[in-house]
Amino acid sequence: MASSPSTHNCLGWAARDPSGVLSPYNFSRRVVGSDDVSLDIAYCGICYADVIWTRNEGGTSKYPLVPGHEIVGIVKEVGSNVIQRFKVGDPVGVGAYVNSCRECKNCNEYLEIECSKGAVPTFDGIDADGILTKGGYSTYIVVHQRYCYKIPENYPLASAAPLLCAGITVYTPMMRHNMNQPGKSLGVIGLGGLGHLAVKFGKALGLKVTVFSTSISKKEEALNLLGADNFVISSDQQQMMALSKSFDFLINTASGDIPFDLYLSLLKTAGVLALVGFPKQVKFSPGSLSFGMKSIAGSITGGTQLTQEMLEFCASHKIYPEIEIVPIQYVNEALERLINKDIKYRFVIDIGSSLKTDG
Amino acid sequence: MASSPSTHNCLGWAARDPSGVLSPYNFSRRVVGSDDVSLDIAYCGICYADVIWTRNEGGTSKYPLVPGHEIVGIVKEVGSNVIQRFKVGDPVGVGAYVNSCRECKNCNEYLEIECSKGAVPTFDGIDADGILTKGGYSTYIVVHQRYCYKIPENYPLASAAPLLCAGITVYTPMMRHNMNQPGKSLGVIGLGGLGHLAVKFGKALGLKVTVFSTSISKKEEALNLLGADNFVISSDQQQMMALSKSFDFLINTASGDIPFDLYLSLLKTAGVLALVGFPKQVKFSPGSLSFGMKSIAGSITGGTQLTQEMLEFCASHKIYPEIEIVPIQYVNEALERLINKDIKYRFVIDIGSSLKTDG
Repeated sequence: MASSPSTHNCLGWAARDPSGVLSPYNFSRRVVGSDDVSLDIAYCGICYADVIWTRNEGGTSKYPLVPGHEIVGIVKEVGSNVIQRFKVGDPVGVGAYVNSCRECKNCNEYLEIECSKGAVPTFDGIDADGILTKGGYSTYIVVHQRYCYKIPENYPLASAAPLLCAGITVYTPMMRHNMNQPGKSLGVIGLGGLGHLAVKFGKALGLKVTVFSTSISKKEEALNLLGADNFVISSDQQQMMALSKSFDFLINTASGDIPFDLYLSLLKTAGVLALVGFPKQVKFSPGSLSFGMKSIAGSITGGTQLTQEMLEFCASHKIYPEIEIVPIQYVNEALERLINKDIKYRFVIDIGSSLKTDG
Repeated sequence: MASSPSTHNCLGWAARDPSGVLSPYNFSRRVVGSDDVSLDIAYCGICYADVIWTRNEGGTSKYPLVPGHEIVGIVKEVGSNVIQRFKVGDPVGVGAYVNSCRECKNCNEYLEIECSKGAVPTFDGIDADGILTKGGYSTYIVVHQRYCYKIPENYPLASAAPLLCAGITVYTPMMRHNMNQPGKSLGVIGLGGLGHLAVKFGKALGLKVTVFSTSISKKEEALNLLGADNFVISSDQQQMMALSKSFDFLINTASGDIPFDLYLSLLKTAGVLALVGFPKQVKFSPGSLSFGMKSIAGSITGGTQLTQEMLEFCASHKIYPEIEIVPIQYVNEALERLINKDIKYRFVIDIGSSLKTDG
């Protein structure tokens, strides 16, 4: 099925057009430079971004498109400047971006994702060499060491994958808005890949965590598996009203539309609603924000330093994403199931066992 | 014109119904309690809230309604516990609220406006004694000392009036979001009572201030009278696009609808849009907030400690609101003109000269 011309050193699965259907695709990775790390990919998480980009829902997709930005693997080669940091055999990870200018104010503050020249996305981005980046649904990847993370010792590799995008995406606003204050209250809106990690992080930080969901079917797991303190069906107006002004923090991880006025009414004075999901539109009455000095704060993924910190945090608190491991041959079905929200809570592709250059 | 039964000790101007037309009205103020200050009102600023409440636009107005919450006057009597703080003859001010529980967390942190039991508005509120509060379009007022501010020595009384609502309303988010960093850039959206003070405060704080307005007629004054560094017509797409990612802070003081996505695109990474105006709705695409970790933060007026600080700040920086002084007999016309935005930049009623119990 896969064509393997000798000039192509990497096998991936790519979408060829906005149908989004993925199939094997041979391409080349660059030679390892002095600051580069090359890793054999063991696992790659499936993020909702993979759906959006393979189907060109953002209108910017360039085909063939190899998705995947929750990448975990084993170092197979390092450049001369990397020896101090990584060695062959180390377990490492790569997240949602693989390059940035490393010179601007934001890069200097380890906010590389906000690089003034634009961080280069792990897939469908144009890298400094002018080549289209290709993601983790592939046998190996070469990245500048700055965008490569150490996976803590003994942390299960497959479980580490979702941390590289879903994990850092919720951890970043949690740290930025000081959600590390035990005893404070956090409401997590939506219980998917991001939401379930927000619950686990919140509990590890000592917060009182309430899950808001549209589906009663998630109650049992939210409370017993994930450890949430409370579960609320968001369509239950009475239950919602009873929670008025009771939250220090909310994180909206839902990608569907939510009633922002109602959720803002649940925040205490000076409360913050962190927005990491992508509803179609954010819409509310100004009084919902002004009375009570409340804020809505946006966030996407996070910087390299914080990503490494988050990985250590997960290891030391024994936080593991809930995952379903699938072979690459299942990826089209997995993406369909993700669209239908039929996953608890994150797919991880077992690249190492199911995708082989000679397979 | 005014009826003056002997039991009524105060003369005000009140709206009797949602027509909002004001006319003389006699009523009683309470006896000065041990923690109270009584002041002869010298001036009262006209805030847009006066329009909203006299016309019952919020649906909660109780008539007769005496508006006015930018009150400046001279102490005429103090309670026994107040002697340390105020004495007869002192120039003092009262803002948008006159009571709160003084026991909750927010009150203890001098965020009385966010009192958990509800701060009592200066007019159209129900005070602790069950009586409907009446505002500063009146000869005198009695308030608990905590909600009474010292007007700094030699600060012109008429100019102090707009500071008690408009002033503290913009000063609060400016302090809360650390806009006191010389060299940073502030965009002020809308140039009315609030906006023109945001410009003056911004300049005093060493910020680079740009005014966004829909009306070219305000350019000359914005630059030369108020001292703004730049003036932009917000409908000029090209000029707006050129300012992409160039502001640390924005303050929206406009009460009309604004294109939030466009304004958010003007913020730098981690920039804050402070919302103090009341557009009909706030509406934007989530990406406008998430890419760049931006925030929208609401705010209304401010606490007592910060109000006093703001008054001192204005005195020490020689900041004076631009005002048009009018007699009480002009108030209906002034409210009409305010609705038509025909004021640069704040009306102040000369209560002392034009409203007399025997007049």
